[in-house]
Amino acid sequence: MKLVSKGVCASKGFKASGIHCGIRKDNSKYDLSLILSDTMCTASAVYTTNLVKGAPLLVSKEHLKDGRIKAVICNSGNANTCNADGIEVAKKTCFELSKLLDCDESEIVVASTGVIGQKLDVEPIINAMPSLISKLSYEGSRDANFGIMTTDTKPKDVAVEFTLNGKLCHIGGIAKGSGMIHPDMATMLVFITTDVSISKEALDKALSSDIQSTFNMLSIDGDTSTNDMVTVLSNGMAGNNEINDTKSEEFSTFMKALNTVTVGLCKKIAADGEGATKMLECRVTGAKDDITAKTAAKSVICSSLLKAAMFGADANWGRVLCALGYSKADIDISKIDVSFESKKGVIDVCKDGSGVDFDEGKAKEILLENEIQINIDLKDGDFSSYAWGCDLTYDYVRINGDYRT
Amino acid sequence: MKLVSKGVCASKGFKASGIHCGIRKDNSKYDLSLILSDTMCTASAVYTTNLVKGAPLLVSKEHLKDGRIKAVICNSGNANTCNADGIEVAKKTCFELSKLLDCDESEIVVASTGVIGQKLDVEPIINAMPSLISKLSYEGSRDANFGIMTTDTKPKDVAVEFTLNGKLCHIGGIAKGSGMIHPDMATMLVFITTDVSISKEALDKALSSDIQSTFNMLSIDGDTSTNDMVTVLSNGMAGNNEINDTKSEEFSTFMKALNTVTVGLCKKIAADGEGATKMLECRVTGAKDDITAKTAAKSVICSSLLKAAMFGADANWGRVLCALGYSKADIDISKIDVSFESKKGVIDVCKDGSGVDFDEGKAKEILLENEIQINIDLKDGDFSSYAWGCDLTYDYVRINGDYRT
Repeated sequence: MKLVSKGVCASKGFKASGIHCGIRKDNSKYDLSLILSDTMCTASAVYTTNLVKGAPLLVSKEHLKDGRIKAVICNSGNANTCNADGIEVAKKTCFELSKLLDCDESEIVVASTGVIGQKLDVEPIINAMPSLISKLSYEGSRDANFGIMTTDTKPKDVAVEFTLNGKLCHIGGIAKGSGMIHPDMATMLVFITTDVSISKEALDKALSSDIQSTFNMLSIDGDTSTNDMVTVLSNGMAGNNEINDTKSEEFSTFMKALNTVTVGLCKKIAADGEGATKMLECRVTGAKDDITAKTAAKSVICSSLLKAAMFGADANWGRVLCALGYSKADIDISKIDVSFESKKGVIDVCKDGSGVDFDEGKAKEILLENEIQINIDLKDGDFSSYAWGCDLTYDYVRINGDYRT
Repeated sequence: MKLVSKGVCASKGFKASGIHCGIRKDNSKYDLSLILSDTMCTASAVYTTNLVKGAPLLVSKEHLKDGRIKAVICNSGNANTCNADGIEVAKKTCFELSKLLDCDESEIVVASTGVIGQKLDVEPIINAMPSLISKLSYEGSRDANFGIMTTDTKPKDVAVEFTLNGKLCHIGGIAKGSGMIHPDMATMLVFITTDVSISKEALDKALSSDIQSTFNMLSIDGDTSTNDMVTVLSNGMAGNNEINDTKSEEFSTFMKALNTVTVGLCKKIAADGEGATKMLECRVTGAKDDITAKTAAKSVICSSLLKAAMFGADANWGRVLCALGYSKADIDISKIDVSFESKKGVIDVCKDGSGVDFDEGKAKEILLENEIQINIDLKDGDFSSYAWGCDLTYDYVRINGDYRT
């Protein structure tokens, strides 16, 4: 398993591009992206659980039903959500693109991210399609990555290379993190490509099981977006024997590679959370079962009080215990150990549910780093979980309190 | 029903006092309070659901079992929580006070608020008890109110006067809101007194039913404190016929008076939430049942994104829909109407789940006020609910990100 560059274009046979089409006012920023496979893909996707769902998401869900996808188009600057004509606009986008790509409109995934409740004008998108297509290249992942960003400060990609039956295989992904479009809905979009040959059933299984411990364990501000979507496209161009058996060694290799990409993207999204100065990773060990580990880790990573303390590099472990206490996880508070860790070292702050004396200077030094681990041992079993998030900062408030105009 | 002054001393036969005993470093700030009834009280209380519970809360819970209480002592500056000797300190406080008040230690409620995980030295409290007692007066509610404050910027009290069987009755309360002690656990403490004669069973019923639509519908930052407690002490000195029957007219008059006090305190706590510049009130109507109304209202009031938008006076109604969508309330998004309201007027922003054109200037004018109503009509039934909270501001981050020292 080797980390490689080129994002979604790391996988053989995937081109990508990104341009400015005019949805975002700032014409130095891309706002329309395309990912195209040379051949038909098997595709899987998972969606937000929010009852309010973006129109593009509903259209894509329909298109993804048979698992046959050729391309993904995504705009930033407008989420096309809560608009009376939203479905029409999303369908029109697919229809116009399908004519130019000479495929069926149902073979296109459409996504939008940005402000909600404002009508999305489809004309700039349609007008820009020829340029978008002519710019497609096997080096275009970064451009596509730019085109899906909103308040993200950095493009986010992770790709890996590995072998299956002696064939060189790849999985690569790009993500748009929890940022607002000046300043609206937090939205996470993840597009993953792979050249591995894998059946629809096995790919569904891989994605749905992977997200439980990756994207579902990521929280920036506790708000669940209306437009979240994670899509995987597999075109089989690596030439391996198709993976059908989810108990096979090949399937576990694929899962491991997928997990490397998704965990990497989770950390990048967390580190670039709105206004974030620190990436927080909560590691819960010693849980009696999986759900307890996950519930505990997620409650800690979501606590506004703890997030603000981390911004201040304050070893305020009481807030960790507090968040565990209201998490509804079935835990014994009197057994809990807590430590804070970064590349500057590790410091124990709580043992068996009570505070221990610790060196505040050392704690401060550890917490001033920009990647912090919060380690929690429940000492009650063998299950563990990670969760990722970020600190709560002045800039989070500034970004989300500013005017939409 | 008439609003009156004097907080917990509005009720006949209750004295109170507050002093600086030395727990807080700033000696201009009170940190120890006492409320004492001239006669034995019937008492009820409700407690935090956090699994981590402050030691004083556990001791008070034991003392409240038989419902006989004479006095309440509360310190600020240290929550006496997650300390190995916490129970011992809380018990010692009650024991020493009981000797001076010539009552049983089990007749005392003890509470603490402030930083958690730091040992609370009981000596300053014991040493200050004689002064605290000699300062007791029927005018002392405000002093007691000061003594329970942490980062609260204002004391919070509400009291009402009403009649039962021709007797003048009172209910009065003081509250310590969701502020941090520089900068630790958010804690809500509410002490309510009444001179109404009411049975333990009826009082329990009144309090446990009232909090469902009052303190349980209040959120500052989504963190549930380890030390939250609401206590009602009733000494019967108004001379009314004891209320036993929870179906009686007297009981409903009592409930109405209690609700006036608790809603008033909720709004004051919300308005003085950490760093808050605005009190937010979410009014959900047209819900199919009570739980749907409450779940919807609470989800909206807890949304960090909406709270930040309100700070920026931005009519970002998409975030209201988003919060309703992930609330897990059983609602039909396509029916929802949303409007924003303040004393400057009301403006419709969403109709049947989609945006409507509105005057942004007018919306801004409405949202620049410091009390904002967010009205949501689910158009799906006859149930309604209120929830209270505040905006998310730079100061929230500053207060909670600063160092503990």
